[in-house]
Formats: sequence, structure tokens, C-alpha cells
Amino acid sequence: MNKLPASLQKAIDFFDKLPSIGGKTARRLGFYLLRIPQSDLEEFAAILLELKKKSHYCKICMNLTEEEICAICTDSSRDSTMITVVEDVIDLLSMDAGNQYNGVYHVLHGRIDPLNYIGPEEIYIQQLLTRIKEDKNTIKEVILATNPNTEGEATALYIKKLILEVAPELRISRLAYGLPIGADLEYADYLTLQRAMEGRRDL
Amino acid sequence: MNKLPASLQKAIDFFDKLPSIGGKTARRLGFYLLRIPQSDLEEFAAILLELKKKSHYCKICMNLTEEEICAICTDSSRDSTMITVVEDVIDLLSMDAGNQYNGVYHVLHGRIDPLNYIGPEEIYIQQLLTRIKEDKNTIKEVILATNPNTEGEATALYIKKLILEVAPELRISRLAYGLPIGADLEYADYLTLQRAMEGRRDL
Repeated sequence: MNKLPASLQKAIDFFDKLPSIGGKTARRLGFYLLRIPQSDLEEFAAILLELKKKSHYCKICMNLTEEEICAICTDSSRDSTMITVVEDVIDLLSMDAGNQYNGVYHVLHGRIDPLNYIGPEEIYIQQLLTRIKEDKNTIKEVILATNPNTEGEATALYIKKLILEVAPELRISRLAYGLPIGADLEYADYLTLQRAMEGRRDL
Repeated sequence: MNKLPASLQKAIDFFDKLPSIGGKTARRLGFYLLRIPQSDLEEFAAILLELKKKSHYCKICMNLTEEEICAICTDSSRDSTMITVVEDVIDLLSMDAGNQYNGVYHVLHGRIDPLNYIGPEEIYIQQLLTRIKEDKNTIKEVILATNPNTEGEATALYIKKLILEVAPELRISRLAYGLPIGADLEYADYLTLQRAMEGRRDL
């Protein structure tokens, strides 16, 4: 079935390997690239080449940055007494999208997941503990915002235990469980409903 | 909201501009590229750079190829007495996927679409007519497989008229209308049902 030019087929194959892109979309993208100006292709090629070289982890919070310290950690208007611990940079972006939270972050770059051979040493827990130990007097609260699933729960509990060893007085919290805004009770799963019930508040 | 490294943001912005990729997918793809080996990025960058330079149109049928004449036109096992005219190379691939059709193709690279300022001169109709004129004695049938919508219909009718001027004896056909295989009558639109009714066959 070698009906396409080899170079086009290679571009399509690359897209096909990317997450959330299926075969048909990969093909459409390949053809699309053929139609955009050569200068755009060259620009994207240059971006790809420098992408990994320029991005690295912030020395403080492990967020991605091109500097030594990321824009969030250097922002003096943010409240550095509050650290939200997230699994991934994407989670950090979601947390920060609403501009509701004004504290700082720590990115674990994963979760403890023994079934996939990811132990506590594979993620950036030690850096968090060191940071807490060093800034024990300024940090007031650590919010463990790992995902609300088995691995996320286990990771949060594990980290909580370790934090209490180095800073027994620190407030450690977890995001609330409950119904998402705009949700329909009818479509909520049983566990979420149960948690929402347990966490109900007086009106 | 400049929270990501500039190089990563640029990669995400590029993905965001691609068709059928939304903002969230673009972000996921950007982060994914950060995790794959540098050699893969370099390979993809190289593919992008040569993509447009290597691919061009087949001299006979306007299919995409890296050679002068495409794999379909050079394949001597194919029946060159039958030309299927399609709007785009993607349509050619769809037609050819089932291995049912063994003739050759002609790619118009578009359809007549006055509302979008695409006239007959903007697509490869003239090349088709020249081809028919030159091979008048070998070509037996031209199947106008433009899309079953207003522009596709109009393009087919327009091309039919021109073909008859150069080859009045040629058989010119159009793909059948009807219900797609596996479809549910309940969900078929009125026009399709009407055409399926008109084209009904004795059992």
C-alpha cells in the first residue's frame, strides 16, 4: 500500500504515534503540512530541535522552565507559604488557570504506582521534603493535590507521612471531593455522590 | 499566563493551529514531545524540512509522489482504460483502500466552489482533458467521483460537459447514491433515502 510519497508517509507515521491522534487524523495532518508554507515547516522543525534542550525543571518546584527558577517561583506577588503538590505540569496549569490560587507549587512528575514499577524514588518527593525542611518557618500549608484515584490517594498518604516526620506542625490538606459544578446528579457515580454526602455543608 | 517555557509554548501553539487538534490536545502533544528521545525530535524535524521539497504531483494523474510518475500510474497491472476523478489525494486513498477498484485516477486538487473563489481554472481539469484527448482510444470510462454535495455535483457536471466536447463517445459515470452499508434507516437523512429509493434495484 505504498501509495504516498515516502516523506509524507513518514510525517503521517510520526503523527500516528502521538497520543490522542488516530490514523485518519494523522493522515489529515500530513496533508495539511504539505499545504502550509515551507517557512512554517522550518520554524516548527527549529522548535522541535530546541524543545528538549531549552526546557528543564525549576530548581525550586520542578515546574518546567527555560530559566533556573520558574516564573511562578520568582513571582514575588505569590504566597510562598502555601505549596500545592501536583503530579504533573499539566495539573499545575489546570490549578492555576482560574487565578483563584495564589500560592506556589511542587511538581512530582508522576505518582507512586507499583504496578507500573514507579516507586517513591522515581518521583520528586525528596526535593519537596528538602524544601519543607529548609523553609520550615515560612511554609504554613501543603495541599496534596494528587489525582483522586487509587495511585493519587496512596501517593498523598505516603507524602503526608514523610512531611510529618520533618515538620510535624505543618498543616497538610487535600482537595475536597464532591460533585463538579454544573454536573447532573443523575450522571454522578456512586463514589462521588458518597463523598459529596460525607462532605456536605450547612446552608 | 506565561507559565510554560517559551519553546514548549511555541510547540503547543503550532499544534493548536493544526486542523482537528484542540487546545487541550495541543498541550498534551507538547508535553509528550518533551518526553520522547531527542533523536525522534531530530528525525521529525528532518521529515518536516524535506516534506514539501520531495513531494510533488504525478505528471499523469496529479497524485502525490516523489518520482515523476506515481506508483499507481506506473503499475502495469492496473487497468488504464478507466479513470476515476477525485477531488483530493485523500479521496484517492479511500477509493483505493478496499482494493476493489483496479483502474487509475485523476486528482483535481479541489472542486469548483465560486463562493470560495475557486473556479474551473484553479483545479486540474485541463490536465484531465489533455489526457483524455491524447489517450482517446485507450480510455473507455471516466468515473466522476467528486463528493456527493453541491460543489462536487456541480464540478462533476461541468467536467462531464467538457469531456463530451473532446470525446463524445466516452462513457462517463458517477458513483451510486444510497444508504451506506451498516447504516440504520432511522438515522439516514431524507435526501439519501430519496436517492436510495430512486436507485432501488430488483432483488
